[in-house]
Amino acid sequence: MFASSDLRAADPLPSWNDTAAKKAITTFVGKVSTEDSPDFVPVPERIATFDNDGTLWSEQPAYFQLLFAFDRVKALAPQHPEWKEKEPFASLLKGNLQGVAASGEKGLLEIVAATHAGMSTEEFEKIVTDWIATARHPETGKLYTGMVFLPMLELLSYLRENAFKTFIVSGGGIEFMRPWTERVYGIPPEQIIGSRIKTKYETIDGRPMLARLPEIDFINDKEGKPAGINSHIGRRPIAAFGNSDGDRQMLEWTQAGGGTRLIMLVHHDDANREWAYDRNSKIGTFSDSLMEEAQKNDWTVISIKDDWKTVYPE
Amino acid sequence: MFASSDLRAADPLPSWNDTAAKKAITTFVGKVSTEDSPDFVPVPERIATFDNDGTLWSEQPAYFQLLFAFDRVKALAPQHPEWKEKEPFASLLKGNLQGVAASGEKGLLEIVAATHAGMSTEEFEKIVTDWIATARHPETGKLYTGMVFLPMLELLSYLRENAFKTFIVSGGGIEFMRPWTERVYGIPPEQIIGSRIKTKYETIDGRPMLARLPEIDFINDKEGKPAGINSHIGRRPIAAFGNSDGDRQMLEWTQAGGGTRLIMLVHHDDANREWAYDRNSKIGTFSDSLMEEAQKNDWTVISIKDDWKTVYPE
Repeated sequence: MFASSDLRAADPLPSWNDTAAKKAITTFVGKVSTEDSPDFVPVPERIATFDNDGTLWSEQPAYFQLLFAFDRVKALAPQHPEWKEKEPFASLLKGNLQGVAASGEKGLLEIVAATHAGMSTEEFEKIVTDWIATARHPETGKLYTGMVFLPMLELLSYLRENAFKTFIVSGGGIEFMRPWTERVYGIPPEQIIGSRIKTKYETIDGRPMLARLPEIDFINDKEGKPAGINSHIGRRPIAAFGNSDGDRQMLEWTQAGGGTRLIMLVHHDDANREWAYDRNSKIGTFSDSLMEEAQKNDWTVISIKDDWKTVYPE
Repeated sequence: MFASSDLRAADPLPSWNDTAAKKAITTFVGKVSTEDSPDFVPVPERIATFDNDGTLWSEQPAYFQLLFAFDRVKALAPQHPEWKEKEPFASLLKGNLQGVAASGEKGLLEIVAATHAGMSTEEFEKIVTDWIATARHPETGKLYTGMVFLPMLELLSYLRENAFKTFIVSGGGIEFMRPWTERVYGIPPEQIIGSRIKTKYETIDGRPMLARLPEIDFINDKEGKPAGINSHIGRRPIAAFGNSDGDRQMLEWTQAGGGTRLIMLVHHDDANREWAYDRNSKIGTFSDSLMEEAQKNDWTVISIKDDWKTVYPE
């Protein structure tokens, strides 16, 4: 006979309410990991892919990588007096984000070039490592790594305990995630897939290095996600997790492999504990047509409000 | 007291002679995997990268992927009557390889486009799987997978037994290797890094697929190897294995990480059991300057003739 505390201890997903979403996860994992099940999947094929922004951590009021870039512009401004007169930097330094937005994609690329390029891969790793250890979210005051979703951390662990290999497949920068994803999510650098700028091999003072160039190499979003998965993993996932229209093709690609699949979308519907947004949001758009596709294909929509007992750690 | 047969059974590298090369391997593995050693390396950082052509299998009289492409041109020729008049196909179909070579890089790209593109990733995987299961080497009559190097298979296993993660980092096509590297080398698709053509996500008859386009995406050779390692692994190897000038930058990049490193070059010097070639070879050039760099940096040069008891399996 077990006491209820023992039962709780045995629950691999304690931050999930006992709703359909949790049941979908445990049913799927049971099927694919039971040897005499018709849905059994051999260990090497147990590949699960996760979007990052809005799926594993929050993404409001802007993608956290953009907030990182803004912090970098402010830190670098004393070395760039010309930025006071030059868009999009001038608007950014005045805190006029509409002015930044007005400079469009070209302006954004200039910010990326100024903050993400022009150094070695090792130097950039150190910049990110320092920022993520100290920078705080403008609204919650939390460290950004304190705004990861506890239920998703449990899900990652639960899948790995059942011999899944977990990957991140994000539109965000691959080198922006790698310095901290192993510590925070338990996902090593070689299992991170993201957008990339080009690098160039150079030998400086006899020491080989990879210089980060101000040139986009690959955008790992929308149609790019299946291509990124194919290029990095070379195997189709059997489980995929997203939260927005940017994940649609990854979910379709996962489903098209046939067989039992677990496909889930995090729906941000909890304005009290996190944020509530979907069809009309500029960040993490969850359109009506995505919702229709989810219903038609039996993808599971996770309601943060109803399905998660706790949102953030602690 | 052990009988000599027990000692042999305990040897993880039985196809290696008891020379300096074998000693370099076992000494290195002992150092990095012994917890109280000053050279101890935590498990997640035990990354080893291997070139493929000329390092894990033979590469004469031409890269095996080129022989695959030639076989495909012959198989597809009935559907392409125009090839009889069109270079480089006309020369290839007449067995005139000098004519093919005369068409240069442009001709080679046309052969790649005709044999490696214009189908889905799944279709290409099936073509490679069928070819590798049946095609035979023009000189030895062996299956190509019978021309992998037994000492290197033992080395891969030995490293993995000591918690290394083994990767291939090849100038060859990533999708040409993945269908068979797990079975033959024990290296899964997600640990293969190679050259790539572009793919495009398309939905055809309601089914999502990745179409292979006749356009080079990335050449994973020379300076490309450190960039490919960085993009796929995001961590610097502590051991790297190559056989030619195309591997030089990968070896330099590995060494520049500092700490104890194992860096080895296979030298093809056994005309009886394999092939003998180096500085003047068009395939797998091992230049004098590479040999000098190896000596200067204490990289270990493996002599197939002297260091390997057996070359191929069986």
